[in-house]
Amino acid sequence: MESAMTIRQVIDTILTEVSALPYPQTVDTIKAGDPSRPVTGIVTTFIATWEVISRAAALGANLIITHEATFYSDRDDMDWLRGDPVYTAKAQLIEQHGIVIWRFHDFWHLYHPDGILTGLLKALGWESYVLTLADPQRSYVCHVPAIRLIELAQMLKTQLGLSAVRVIGPDDMLCSRVWMLPGSPPSQLEIGALGREDIDVVVVGEVNEWETPEYVRDAQHMGHSRGLIILGHANSEEAGMHWLAEWLRPHFPDVTVTHIPAGDPLRTV
Amino acid sequence: MESAMTIRQVIDTILTEVSALPYPQTVDTIKAGDPSRPVTGIVTTFIATWEVISRAAALGANLIITHEATFYSDRDDMDWLRGDPVYTAKAQLIEQHGIVIWRFHDFWHLYHPDGILTGLLKALGWESYVLTLADPQRSYVCHVPAIRLIELAQMLKTQLGLSAVRVIGPDDMLCSRVWMLPGSPPSQLEIGALGREDIDVVVVGEVNEWETPEYVRDAQHMGHSRGLIILGHANSEEAGMHWLAEWLRPHFPDVTVTHIPAGDPLRTV
Repeated sequence: MESAMTIRQVIDTILTEVSALPYPQTVDTIKAGDPSRPVTGIVTTFIATWEVISRAAALGANLIITHEATFYSDRDDMDWLRGDPVYTAKAQLIEQHGIVIWRFHDFWHLYHPDGILTGLLKALGWESYVLTLADPQRSYVCHVPAIRLIELAQMLKTQLGLSAVRVIGPDDMLCSRVWMLPGSPPSQLEIGALGREDIDVVVVGEVNEWETPEYVRDAQHMGHSRGLIILGHANSEEAGMHWLAEWLRPHFPDVTVTHIPAGDPLRTV
Repeated sequence: MESAMTIRQVIDTILTEVSALPYPQTVDTIKAGDPSRPVTGIVTTFIATWEVISRAAALGANLIITHEATFYSDRDDMDWLRGDPVYTAKAQLIEQHGIVIWRFHDFWHLYHPDGILTGLLKALGWESYVLTLADPQRSYVCHVPAIRLIELAQMLKTQLGLSAVRVIGPDDMLCSRVWMLPGSPPSQLEIGALGREDIDVVVVGEVNEWETPEYVRDAQHMGHSRGLIILGHANSEEAGMHWLAEWLRPHFPDVTVTHIPAGDPLRTV
């Protein structure tokens, strides 16, 4: 379906709807393609993989809104990839299908409430558990019915349909106050949360293994038990891009909006 | 056993033996304790956890040589941890037992051949597989008898005694040229290796999930198959600190040198 809107107009409308303010060095830029073309369909995804791009092209969509980078580094630097066979073929694939790739990371997290977090809570059915307090960081805390750490990890795995999650802390520890931090937040934020008296467990996407996990391991041995559950980066944020597709549809009633999950790149052996 | 040597003399002897040259902003500094004391025993470990410190104290050792940070950030910054209950208790534990913690990271990697890599190859029995070429980066490549990617992952898991490893790439891909990168190397180094014609698979400790794994996933879909095996950071480097203990003994025949494995902080559910 071809709309009278250009891709540029779609992007500008989204930025207006989320009340995006100027943000220094935002990564939310166009990574490939010509935004002056009329939009023929929108795809949202956690990350614009080769497979997601191919499936978007098969759907006839020419705007992919990706949460993470397309070219293997946070700022999508491409100079170091010149001559690389995978980069070269991926750039050609995008050009061949006339697709625009736009990243929507910073402004979706900065939206109130954070679009990625909202999608994760919807996927878990946890919206009623959120403690919405004046401190914006506290709005990430969920008050869940008391559950053992190992059972909480298994419940998250089941409800998100994952093949594996990783956990640190005592299996039998009772958890009720859960700080949800999808993605790869700074370790100091995670450790700051775990040092508090009113937080039992932090749920994240990805960590530096030698930072927060080691804090939790030391905490357990000294008797200040805390829990950490690591979902995987894609596993923790894909639902937020699924929610974006639902959020976009009323804003663009004449454009087909599809979520294509990228899936977890990793499998556990 | 008390030696006539001070802890400072032990550290200086090690730095002389590895021919350490001045290295800008090295993390290889003393993190806690008084190095003017006579050494009573040396413990090597991947990371000086609460448990490792307690076990070193029980052995009567007062020098812990750790590969990774003690206080949850690469540079062991402590200002942001003031008042944190885990940091406070750990610092007290170290002081109470009169232990010195010294980090040996940069100079053990810079030693020829890299001490961490040597320990990993010894643990695998792979020393005869190393291709030692003029390019120092090539010295990390091992030429192994051809094996399917999934079997290589299982073999590494079994030989290192791990509970889980993570893998990306086609299960059936035949691998013979394996670039060993223990620890958490820069993604551009990993991707640069995987873009080459003469590398099949990269084995690492830890990655950014949205960088190298996504490169390997795209490579697979475009038909340029490569493999990536992720051992876990501690799992990939502990053997290098076990090897350090063996390497130290002839240099300090009057001091008891013990390796205490920190173990993997993460378990997979």
